[in-house]
Amino acid sequence: MLSQNVIRILIGISAGTLMMTTVPAAVRQKNAADAAVNQIRDVLDRQVQAWNRRDLEGFMEGYWHSPELTFYSGGTVVSGWEQTLARYRNRYQSEGKEMGHLEFSAVKIELLGPSAAFVRGRFYLKMASAESSGVFTLTFKKLAGGWKIIHDHTSTG
Amino acid sequence: MLSQNVIRILIGISAGTLMMTTVPAAVRQKNAADAAVNQIRDVLDRQVQAWNRRDLEGFMEGYWHSPELTFYSGGTVVSGWEQTLARYRNRYQSEGKEMGHLEFSAVKIELLGPSAAFVRGRFYLKMASAESSGVFTLTFKKLAGGWKIIHDHTSTG
Repeated sequence: MLSQNVIRILIGISAGTLMMTTVPAAVRQKNAADAAVNQIRDVLDRQVQAWNRRDLEGFMEGYWHSPELTFYSGGTVVSGWEQTLARYRNRYQSEGKEMGHLEFSAVKIELLGPSAAFVRGRFYLKMASAESSGVFTLTFKKLAGGWKIIHDHTSTG
Repeated sequence: MLSQNVIRILIGISAGTLMMTTVPAAVRQKNAADAAVNQIRDVLDRQVQAWNRRDLEGFMEGYWHSPELTFYSGGTVVSGWEQTLARYRNRYQSEGKEMGHLEFSAVKIELLGPSAAFVRGRFYLKMASAESSGVFTLTFKKLAGGWKIIHDHTSTG
């Protein structure tokens, strides 16, 4: 009887483990996906807010702080977080340049796995004397510090 | 004795299951990743070969045959496989246009999960009268028909 009970317990544990790892897993996965999309949207929102208060370091927090970050734009390649910041400084904060007012639209966040996503969208930059618009593709990865852009490809019309 | 044997068998099955799902899983994952990278490289190689024999339909086989395919270039958005083919036809096969000779370089394939990847690279297009070069970012997904580009962002210098 004891050994039968042991078997029943073993079977009980197996069934319990199955229940725990199968049925609620779908729910957990859905919740995790929703959370990931919201976290990525937050990164983008914070970038726009930082840009519009002329806080380029705040804007750059959305990017992976690594020499492996890549930024493609108009056929050119910039590698590294520092180099990407330098590019932005040169184009938008050097003498005679202005940052203007930035807006993103048509943002589409698509998860490619539990820790990767790609994002498509349009940007519109309104400056006193000019305006610039175009499209971007971002590859996001969930790193120790949260969701970060590991690659940016931007092109203007 | 029988029930003890049953317990031994159950423990044996558990241990066997653990062995099957943990140790060789890492090897299987590595093999699957290597295979995925090779399959993606094949898609790109076949695209270049198709382009260079003026086979635009063959070139387009690398793309997801869906209205949801997106192609970003120079600030503009083309949505859909048919529309992307029409864009290529217009730019490279209409009157007075030529396809030229295509080469890819610095191709970097990075898996983002078992069924997603992103690819960075440079292209160089040599025509009789002109040349064009730039960079591309591709998002790949493993679909029923194999690895396909679901999004392309290309920009030229």
